[in-house]
Amino acid sequence: MTILAEILAVGDELIHGALLDTNSKWLAGELEAAGAVVQRFTVTSDDPAAMREAFAGACARADVVVATGGLGPTLDDRTRDVVADLLGGPLVFDEASWAQVRHWLGSRGRPVPESNRRQALMPPGARPFANPVGTAPGFGVRVDRAQLYVLPGVPREMQVMAKDHVLPAVRSMPGITPLAQVWLRVLGPSEAALGERIEPFMVPGRNPAVGITASGGLLTIRIVGTAPTAAAAAEACEATARELRPLLGAWLFAEGTVELPELVVAAFKARGLTLAVAESCTGGAIANRIVDVPGASAVFRGGVVAYANEAKEALLGVPRACIEAHGAVSEQVAAAMAEGARTGFRADVALATTGIAGPDGGTPEKPVGTVCFAVADATGTKAWTMRIPDLGRAFVRDRAVFESWRVLLQGRGSG
Amino acid sequence: MTILAEILAVGDELIHGALLDTNSKWLAGELEAAGAVVQRFTVTSDDPAAMREAFAGACARADVVVATGGLGPTLDDRTRDVVADLLGGPLVFDEASWAQVRHWLGSRGRPVPESNRRQALMPPGARPFANPVGTAPGFGVRVDRAQLYVLPGVPREMQVMAKDHVLPAVRSMPGITPLAQVWLRVLGPSEAALGERIEPFMVPGRNPAVGITASGGLLTIRIVGTAPTAAAAAEACEATARELRPLLGAWLFAEGTVELPELVVAAFKARGLTLAVAESCTGGAIANRIVDVPGASAVFRGGVVAYANEAKEALLGVPRACIEAHGAVSEQVAAAMAEGARTGFRADVALATTGIAGPDGGTPEKPVGTVCFAVADATGTKAWTMRIPDLGRAFVRDRAVFESWRVLLQGRGSG
Repeated sequence: MTILAEILAVGDELIHGALLDTNSKWLAGELEAAGAVVQRFTVTSDDPAAMREAFAGACARADVVVATGGLGPTLDDRTRDVVADLLGGPLVFDEASWAQVRHWLGSRGRPVPESNRRQALMPPGARPFANPVGTAPGFGVRVDRAQLYVLPGVPREMQVMAKDHVLPAVRSMPGITPLAQVWLRVLGPSEAALGERIEPFMVPGRNPAVGITASGGLLTIRIVGTAPTAAAAAEACEATARELRPLLGAWLFAEGTVELPELVVAAFKARGLTLAVAESCTGGAIANRIVDVPGASAVFRGGVVAYANEAKEALLGVPRACIEAHGAVSEQVAAAMAEGARTGFRADVALATTGIAGPDGGTPEKPVGTVCFAVADATGTKAWTMRIPDLGRAFVRDRAVFESWRVLLQGRGSG
Repeated sequence: MTILAEILAVGDELIHGALLDTNSKWLAGELEAAGAVVQRFTVTSDDPAAMREAFAGACARADVVVATGGLGPTLDDRTRDVVADLLGGPLVFDEASWAQVRHWLGSRGRPVPESNRRQALMPPGARPFANPVGTAPGFGVRVDRAQLYVLPGVPREMQVMAKDHVLPAVRSMPGITPLAQVWLRVLGPSEAALGERIEPFMVPGRNPAVGITASGGLLTIRIVGTAPTAAAAAEACEATARELRPLLGAWLFAEGTVELPELVVAAFKARGLTLAVAESCTGGAIANRIVDVPGASAVFRGGVVAYANEAKEALLGVPRACIEAHGAVSEQVAAAMAEGARTGFRADVALATTGIAGPDGGTPEKPVGTVCFAVADATGTKAWTMRIPDLGRAFVRDRAVFESWRVLLQGRGSG
């Protein structure tokens, strides 16, 4: 049996460009790991009619619906009202939830406005969920076909409450189907060429399903399987991966559902090496994404964002003559930056980037998209140049960051 | 008259946690600026039945539907088939689109697999849109109530084609209603306290509508108005803002729909000052977000991510004795880091952060969440300490980054 899940996100701010909905993606990953099959996210404005239609539709189609947002204390927070309306009953004041809201605010020395009382109103029959990290209580209630869970929109509050209340309930549903994933990361072929190579695996209805995703110059083959047990699902995915690997050959350059910076940190940890970076055109993006990896401090010594030439000289010891002779975007300067970072941060390996991300700064010899890289380690320094298509500043930067992950994982040299 | 719009995003990779849907937010902002009212996004898996239901629902409810994704060359790219199925007719091979796909691949020296022919198949009656930056052609076609536009999922391809084909068509629709926004950024009160203060403005159905969004410690009052002309919509929003400002007083600390790093760059540009940063616990996030701002190079000299104590010494000239006497997380070290960055980068203003983001590293005197800041400028150096609630590593970092924007905009001192 399949437990179908849908995810709703409520809020004008998600529609009108103020915030990106990151909750739904997180929830989908957790719900699928728990064994549900997620087929749809819906993001709806605060408009009561639009909300009502979105909630009613999801609760008619799915077994589990998780909604986030619209539980705040102000008048534009309408999720409670819409759910009560769907259930055809009035909101009920929950004394325990109100005590908790007051306790949360009071223990932080904040005033307790009367308008926060709205947060303790519950639709008829709803089971309140305590919020250990904020004021908004959540709740669970049966609506039509679905078990509906309503959580706050603030990500950290939503995540704690999903782990406490939603995921355990989903995992214990009768007939839940465990799901597993294996990802193969591919570099080299076009999406179409890869699709032809693995076409027999991509038929609709196959279990495990095999799909291709293109992102930032990298292709990912996603193998997603379901089975009666988590172990059987994992084994089915691995069996498909065993068939695919020989077809991929040298195209296959990494495996796993983790992000590339996590793979880099894991690889350096495994080799007992430390890393430093000197970034010009990538502007700190490499350092920032490495630091986001839990445990990065064991391998990452630090980084310099050296936009100005003076910064390349003063902080990385790049000789002014080198910049004047070859230009700031040159393999020579990239090499000097990498060596300066390796020395300054006392790291085993240092990577440097210097390039022209655009829109300005291009010349006939060095057009926008020209990026020089260097890696310095105990064996010496190697520098190389990439010509990235000028498809916008963000594209050039992303592609340069990706090349950095590639070289840190695969070794030096141009890909 | 109101033109209702909905946005669809297609792809298993969006549901199963591989990619975050950023297209819908971008499209919503552009469609609303063009005068449409967006009430819903839907993200659907590649499952043909789920896709069909999502497309049929959106095209029954809205006047304009923009869908992204599922136009690639592989068998799991099914948007063309689903739309043809909805229209009850077979796919039609479009010779001009095929010529374009071949030209795009050929001019880049790539092979042209036969499977790319799938991308030249069009639903009956569809008008093909050329893709100037990739292989996947898009199309426009009438489905039920809606004018349906289908674009590739790759953001840069989608954006170019939306600007070329979708937005001009929407702007010329009869009865289109221009929309304007004014955002007031607020720091200080709780969301409930702010809601009480401006409650009379938050009634449903008001035009301009007034709403509150909480994000990263900052509250944003969003004023969104529609009117027969863009100028009248802007004036209506500004009239509401004029009424709100006196109610906010010192809580109001910035205005505008731009992000805080953009406000920082604009403020430094206006004052003719340059900026450098030295980051420990914020890990390059401040530098990275500043560099993302177009034109940042005019004010931003660079940054150092100094995780290790040796890096603080070698690159920023923080005396070892200072670290030993006060600890790496101390106002003294923050001050020395800021002064070192100001000197090294030859910047007018330098900001430094050093703190304990967790989960490890806390002590009774300096618990997780303790962050020291310093700003060095021509008038001297000032350092201060914040105790950020320990709600997770990401929260502490985000809150520290936000404090940095605040101090760079409002001046030194604790908030």
